[in-house]
Amino acid sequence: MSRFDQLPADTLFKALEAATPQDTLPATTTLLDAVRFNAEGLLPAIAQQYDTKEVLMMAWMTREALEETLSTHRVCYYSRSRKKLWRKGESSGQQQHLKSAALDCDGDTLLLQVDQTGPACHTGRRSCFYLSLTSDDATINSEPLIHPNELYGNR
Amino acid sequence: MSRFDQLPADTLFKALEAATPQDTLPATTTLLDAVRFNAEGLLPAIAQQYDTKEVLMMAWMTREALEETLSTHRVCYYSRSRKKLWRKGESSGQQQHLKSAALDCDGDTLLLQVDQTGPACHTGRRSCFYLSLTSDDATINSEPLIHPNELYGNR
Repeated sequence: MSRFDQLPADTLFKALEAATPQDTLPATTTLLDAVRFNAEGLLPAIAQQYDTKEVLMMAWMTREALEETLSTHRVCYYSRSRKKLWRKGESSGQQQHLKSAALDCDGDTLLLQVDQTGPACHTGRRSCFYLSLTSDDATINSEPLIHPNELYGNR
Repeated sequence: MSRFDQLPADTLFKALEAATPQDTLPATTTLLDAVRFNAEGLLPAIAQQYDTKEVLMMAWMTREALEETLSTHRVCYYSRSRKKLWRKGESSGQQQHLKSAALDCDGDTLLLQVDQTGPACHTGRRSCFYLSLTSDDATINSEPLIHPNELYGNR
């Protein structure tokens, strides 16, 4: 039992702001009831390589995708274009293995520490964030590790 | 001039997938015309401490907020609750200074490298991602650096 268990979902994250590492928190299922998925039922999830700390990508999860990720430790997103669960690497072979996950203070964003095999980006680059911007101009900041034709069998 | 300048906005990011660090890219204003802000005109922006690589927070930007951030180097978000521009630190004093910014492959997410003064989180913690989750249970993974009453003058 947790002293936070009896709180209504809409006040739970506010109450947890004052919690400490010593507190017993509600079970994950109770927290997921309170998570603020958006109007489409989606939560943004940031994937960070656990050892180098490089931010690899941001994608979206349904509750089902998040539950599968936490239980299998293989990262599963929801593809908004294909409208279905997307087990990262199922086409490209470049999987993400979950090391740890954390919600933010208001329960509407997730940060994943992952171990990414090869490139995270469908372009073959390690990270999706390869378009560097200044107030005036832009540059490409990295090159593919693998040609996308190799990743996706020249489809 | 860039060989990508004449492309319609809806195909620009696709065309840039094959660009290299040697390519001359369109001006930032042309890229911002193509950025895929959501239906509310917002873009998710991830803030990462530039030297330690800790992911501090995720918040939202309008085009105006992004342009201001790129030109002033002081990070400005859009507050969805207050419905106005939010210059990070304007209440708490805990500012974010921009080191660099990068868009992702499909132009719908931004990664900021910042130098964050003190805590990024309104709870006084360094990072907003303090609720660690496993498939079964949750724990608080960090304590405030500063009590929030000190950050916000006991409001």
